[in-house]
Amino acid sequence: VDVVVFGASGYSGLELLRWLARHPVVRVVAASSDALKGAPVRGRLPEWPDDLAFSAHDAALASARTGQIALLATPAKTSLDLAPALLDKGLRVIDLSGAFRLVDAALYPEWYGFPHSHPGLLSLAHYGLVEISAPNRSTRLVANPGCYATAAVLAALPLLASDLVGAGAPIVVDGKSGVTGAGRTLDESLLFAEVAESLRPYRVARHQHTPEIERALGRLAKRDVMVSFTAHLVPMRRGLIASVYAPAKPGVSQADVARALKHAHAAHAFVRVLEDRPPETGLVAYTNFAEVSATLDERARVIAAFCALDNLVKGAAGQAIENLNAMLGLDPATGLTAR
Amino acid sequence: VDVVVFGASGYSGLELLRWLARHPVVRVVAASSDALKGAPVRGRLPEWPDDLAFSAHDAALASARTGQIALLATPAKTSLDLAPALLDKGLRVIDLSGAFRLVDAALYPEWYGFPHSHPGLLSLAHYGLVEISAPNRSTRLVANPGCYATAAVLAALPLLASDLVGAGAPIVVDGKSGVTGAGRTLDESLLFAEVAESLRPYRVARHQHTPEIERALGRLAKRDVMVSFTAHLVPMRRGLIASVYAPAKPGVSQADVARALKHAHAAHAFVRVLEDRPPETGLVAYTNFAEVSATLDERARVIAAFCALDNLVKGAAGQAIENLNAMLGLDPATGLTAR
Amino acid sequence: VDVVVFGASGYSGLELLRWLARHPVVRVVAASSDALKGAPVRGRLPEWPDDLAFSAHDAALASARTGQIALLATPAKTSLDLAPALLDKGLRVIDLSGAFRLVDAALYPEWYGFPHSHPGLLSLAHYGLVEISAPNRSTRLVANPGCYATAAVLAALPLLASDLVGAGAPIVVDGKSGVTGAGRTLDESLLFAEVAESLRPYRVARHQHTPEIERALGRLAKRDVMVSFTAHLVPMRRGLIASVYAPAKPGVSQADVARALKHAHAAHAFVRVLEDRPPETGLVAYTNFAEVSATLDERARVIAAFCALDNLVKGAAGQAIENLNAMLGLDPATGLTAR
Amino acid sequence: VDVVVFGASGYSGLELLRWLARHPVVRVVAASSDALKGAPVRGRLPEWPDDLAFSAHDAALASARTGQIALLATPAKTSLDLAPALLDKGLRVIDLSGAFRLVDAALYPEWYGFPHSHPGLLSLAHYGLVEISAPNRSTRLVANPGCYATAAVLAALPLLASDLVGAGAPIVVDGKSGVTGAGRTLDESLLFAEVAESLRPYRVARHQHTPEIERALGRLAKRDVMVSFTAHLVPMRRGLIASVYAPAKPGVSQADVARALKHAHAAHAFVRVLEDRPPETGLVAYTNFAEVSATLDERARVIAAFCALDNLVKGAAGQAIENLNAMLGLDPATGLTAR
Repeated sequence: VDVVVFGASGYSGLELLRWLARHPVVRVVAASSDALKGAPVRGRLPEWPDDLAFSAHDAALASARTGQIALLATPAKTSLDLAPALLDKGLRVIDLSGAFRLVDAALYPEWYGFPHSHPGLLSLAHYGLVEISAPNRSTRLVANPGCYATAAVLAALPLLASDLVGAGAPIVVDGKSGVTGAGRTLDESLLFAEVAESLRPYRVARHQHTPEIERALGRLAKRDVMVSFTAHLVPMRRGLIASVYAPAKPGVSQADVARALKHAHAAHAFVRVLEDRPPETGLVAYTNFAEVSATLDERARVIAAFCALDNLVKGAAGQAIENLNAMLGLDPATGLTAR
Repeated sequence: VDVVVFGASGYSGLELLRWLARHPVVRVVAASSDALKGAPVRGRLPEWPDDLAFSAHDAALASARTGQIALLATPAKTSLDLAPALLDKGLRVIDLSGAFRLVDAALYPEWYGFPHSHPGLLSLAHYGLVEISAPNRSTRLVANPGCYATAAVLAALPLLASDLVGAGAPIVVDGKSGVTGAGRTLDESLLFAEVAESLRPYRVARHQHTPEIERALGRLAKRDVMVSFTAHLVPMRRGLIASVYAPAKPGVSQADVARALKHAHAAHAFVRVLEDRPPETGLVAYTNFAEVSATLDERARVIAAFCALDNLVKGAAGQAIENLNAMLGLDPATGLTAR
Repeated sequence: VDVVVFGASGYSGLELLRWLARHPVVRVVAASSDALKGAPVRGRLPEWPDDLAFSAHDAALASARTGQIALLATPAKTSLDLAPALLDKGLRVIDLSGAFRLVDAALYPEWYGFPHSHPGLLSLAHYGLVEISAPNRSTRLVANPGCYATAAVLAALPLLASDLVGAGAPIVVDGKSGVTGAGRTLDESLLFAEVAESLRPYRVARHQHTPEIERALGRLAKRDVMVSFTAHLVPMRRGLIASVYAPAKPGVSQADVARALKHAHAAHAFVRVLEDRPPETGLVAYTNFAEVSATLDERARVIAAFCALDNLVKGAAGQAIENLNAMLGLDPATGLTAR
Repeated sequence: VDVVVFGASGYSGLELLRWLARHPVVRVVAASSDALKGAPVRGRLPEWPDDLAFSAHDAALASARTGQIALLATPAKTSLDLAPALLDKGLRVIDLSGAFRLVDAALYPEWYGFPHSHPGLLSLAHYGLVEISAPNRSTRLVANPGCYATAAVLAALPLLASDLVGAGAPIVVDGKSGVTGAGRTLDESLLFAEVAESLRPYRVARHQHTPEIERALGRLAKRDVMVSFTAHLVPMRRGLIASVYAPAKPGVSQADVARALKHAHAAHAFVRVLEDRPPETGLVAYTNFAEVSATLDERARVIAAFCALDNLVKGAAGQAIENLNAMLGLDPATGLTAR
């Protein structure tokens, strides 16, 4: 299968290439990067197997062909333009930005700061959080979930699926992420000397992943779920933890919580349920695995659930390849595990 | 005033020495460290002004004299032994461990893992979170607050003091700290290669600072306050953020929250209320200042309040010197600001 | 081919497992770790494909069988005991420690601090710096090179092979490495709070990799080569740079230097010669690639040559697998590249 | 004494303010920053004692008055314009850039990339490496040394002053620095995600500090000294090590080296000679102290000398204040030590 990667020199784009290079079924025929056009992919990714050079966005778009799959690691606004053009040319599209994650176009100005230019595509788009619902051979457009959303949903999913969460209070999600989540953005606040040895919240109570978390959790709970989500920037390159604090329903015990976790993730190849320690991002870095745990705070009747993952893999490129595999009818783990 | 520092070669102990070296009224007559006894203080702290060498605990204790002040940067179990001995010798004591922070001795086995050997001292001890209540010239024993507790209380204080918090749900405190908070402990999980590029929760819902936070907030709220607190280890040396999520009372607005913050901290020399950005640990590192902000999440009716501080200064040594100043009747900022 | 990994839970051992898991020809039948015996490999390495558990050294040794290959990621002293026992049982051995790297047993007390207990094996051992000389199907014992040695030799090789280095002065090697090079050693000086935001030389002019560098360079130069080598500890997990400063022979030009680099490494699959920028460890991290460059300082008549690599891959586990491939008669890159 | 700081919001500028705030004799009357003009200094430096706001360069220049001292923490090109204007207005000037460090204007195009616009000032400028020669009450213009130059000279000074260095080979200086040395420059290569977990040489054999090192060492040696200098970027905020490799004269012993170090730095308040361990940047961070050591490699007849310092303090702002003190006839350590 021929695939085209747009935005291939950003952190998520390079991570896509790293995994696609190992994928047994896929061939990357173009990798676009306006910044690095003409430069060999191998210059940024020494293990790249051939002489492919980055091409300009326009050239990659012009060369795209029916039957190919396009992976967009571009900013949301770029994806909004690219996706319709690629769909028109007969490609199937997996978009890693937020451009097609929300169902209601009216939410875009509030959460993304711009009106949605192609609201019609929102109903076409499949929200590809694979542990909830994977795409299939006929899916044409996948909205790959946000990194924080993936972690928050994997942590909360068992609690809601087993109906352990009380409805009286919102769910608090405290997210912490390494800086690659922000992309290779030239912003003074992302300089090494500003980030190292420092820690700060950002987008307090207004992070754009909030509505996708609420929608995914609402589907699991079969009721509206309110989430208060704040993100924090941590001085590390990769890795993300979502700490989810949910009110426990009366009568729920730690045993119920443990059982719910085991049950909910039993069939999920890339989610490991931990019983003897909390999740740790370093142990899943550079892999597509997520670690989850949950503890009932009996005094406060709060369930504290945690999910650790690599924001560039399970939180972006790896999950995109899970979606790709599902669109091709392959085993979900194809190209993502050691063998 | 002559002071003796016990546990002077640990991270908090060295930080005490760093600040005491600049203090205009104080003279350090002994600095104990069993690990480094005999070595010059200057070997660990190049700016140390004289030839003082670390002495053994026993020697420092033997040389302690009535009228001096002892600062204990020792583990809780060591402080439990040292404090009574020093009080008996007529010294006044500021203890930086948790040995005297809880009023109820019965809580020690649960939260600290040992029974309290001197319960009688708990009623003598003054809990020295200076923004709530400073000691005075007659205080003999100060329990210097925990680093997480200081940050959590400084963030939540304005909300409770202005009665903005609903009673229907517990307050969630998500703490994140650099590794010096754990002391110079020889533990594989604290090696650079284990901590760098990684992030993990620890002591989920059972951190020993929980009861002191609950008690301090309860005094402010004039009712019982339930707190669910989880700490996280962040790959940095210094710095700590407490992210406090409290249910907003009906009718409370962002303007109420902003007003409460300004009002509550107006008289606190070392607390800066921020309106245009969230707190950031890097900006207060190596200072005794704390930064706080709070945002009402109108959708979820949660107040997200944040406090950033340097865990070794405002969270330990700096606040201990504020307590020292108060015990001596000095200006609270003596020795802690540029001039 | 069945392989046994000893010392499998250390940093080099885990890295061996990470790569062996992807190797198409190899099956790991035992992975020893006294510290983690009984624990599943997957607990430390989530992508591990099966249920293998760590076994005790003794058990792994007892189960070892003729025809297998043993990879030793153990300390030198442990390797000194294990290697003869395994050879006796008919296994072929690749040792990642320094136990068999020096030809002259008399050098061990000086550089390693202990007398060599099996001097007879030193002549059997093949020094497996694959760019100089790879083992073959009949090699029974490989001494996998030191991480600093690999980098220093890859940087200096072209200069000596093309006879560009003057003999009047020693070659200075200034090495800089991340902390995983030191192993998971419980040493206060390796705690995060001691390493982060700090930098220090160590083993000044007496690092144990010095004699293997001198011997390898001497073979290339066909004369004795004197090296003054000092290592530095850098606050990062992985990555190493050897900065090599060699006196230029009279008449040598930058063009000569560039030509020598291209020529010397033209056939080396895992060495990339850079002309437009110096090497950078971040770009080769988690890969088996090394980057090299060299610049003639015309004023001082010094050639400054640099090699960057990942100390755990090209500097340890990856190169061990190159040696394994050569011992099996496989393509050298088997299991080490994307495809 | 009234002082004006130009470029006050950069890393060196803020560090100047941090120390000037504690200085007993000095008052900062203006702090210029075009980027932050109008913002309170306290917003970047919480311990700042008053309400001073950053002013525009032009406004600070216009308000400058005869008898004041100007400290320039501006880029070299800006200093080239500011210094003559300030001198004309009767101020005395300490420039932290390279604009006035070289005596020969002809060297500027080669090392700095621009022709020198005020060559006449080069003979007026005093090169203020205080351990070699401090300015005095009549000095009007001080060129504060480069951070690498300070470290390299402090390491090499004893060797040259005691005539221990052979003339047959150049001195190799391998410098390693944290990122604040590069200033708060918006450059993709300085983003956290590019610097963390990476290490790279830069300005190989053509770093602009080379000529000032050569000139300072030549003065000490009383002959021409050739230096080959390469810098490396280390993933940390502050701290710098110069590793100096010099050929030992025949007959020189380790005892000679040790004696030379002790003797040369005996009178230098801020230089600590180490005999039992190499220098370590973390121990001098946030102080004006430098640590030095030197080891004779007897085999290679190379003296390996090391100096560690904080590039923003002893390598910039702290040394500038030493110069300021000398210009005012004060004790050299005024405002730079604990007491």
